Amino acid sequence: MENHNDEVRIREIIQNWAEAVRSIDIKGILANHSDDILMFDVPPPLESKGIAEYEETWVYFYQYFKKGDTWELRDINVAAGGDAAFATMLIKCGGADGKGFDVRVTMGFKKIKGEWFIAHEHHSVPAKEME
Amino acid sequence: MENHNDEVRIREIIQNWAEAVRSIDIKGILANHSDDILMFDVPPPLESKGIAEYEETWVYFYQYFKKGDTWELRDINVAAGGDAAFATMLIKCGGADGKGFDVRVTMGFKKIKGEWFIAHEHHSVPAKEME
Repeated sequence: MENHNDEVRIREIIQNWAEAVRSIDIKGILANHSDDILMFDVPPPLESKGIAEYEETWVYFYQYFKKGDTWELRDINVAAGGDAAFATMLIKCGGADGKGFDVRVTMGFKKIKGEWFIAHEHHSVPAKEME
Repeated sequence: MENHNDEVRIREIIQNWAEAVRSIDIKGILANHSDDILMFDVPPPLESKGIAEYEETWVYFYQYFKKGDTWELRDINVAAGGDAAFATMLIKCGGADGKGFDVRVTMGFKKIKGEWFIAHEHHSVPAKEME
């Protein structure tokens, strides 16, 4: 039962985050992240550490993404247990016409004083060529 | 204390997995994975589902990786709680000369009947160009 409630809350946090991304609402995007969030993003750099660097990745993102563009989540899976959890999903990212490409996203969560926070995000697309 | 023991065991599983990768030991690579492992790998496809498809990603990998090549883990962080956990790390992948490129790796773990299993892996490199 506790795990069930944890999963419900984590799915809510994910949907709130996605809605904030679509709404270009930076405050909303950052609302449930830990200060030490570790981000592995689609474009460089290799990693972004801490909430300030995480926020910068969205400034870059919004050079491309405009209001009305596509950010659609599917295949969301959550594994929650005690005070750690992870979630996986696919996100269609693209223009307002619904065309676009699929981003694989993994999130790591920590429970701090009874609430869940996103402590890690990993966004990627398959590499086009091996090095 | 329980979390501490969980973290120790998870770090051991990660190191055993990495040693199996270096040793081209497929059985060792698969030793602590759940049957429903979800893999987001560096090259296509978008995702690989289940232990058989996960194994296939390594067959592809070993077209490039040869014994003596580099697969060096660093910056390993583990968050374990109850029966779910996640880990993040960077892995230098390359030739026997130690040159290579950095892969970002996230793993999701589930505790099943008292033992930890890898239920998710996400490997990626930053995209060279935005689509």
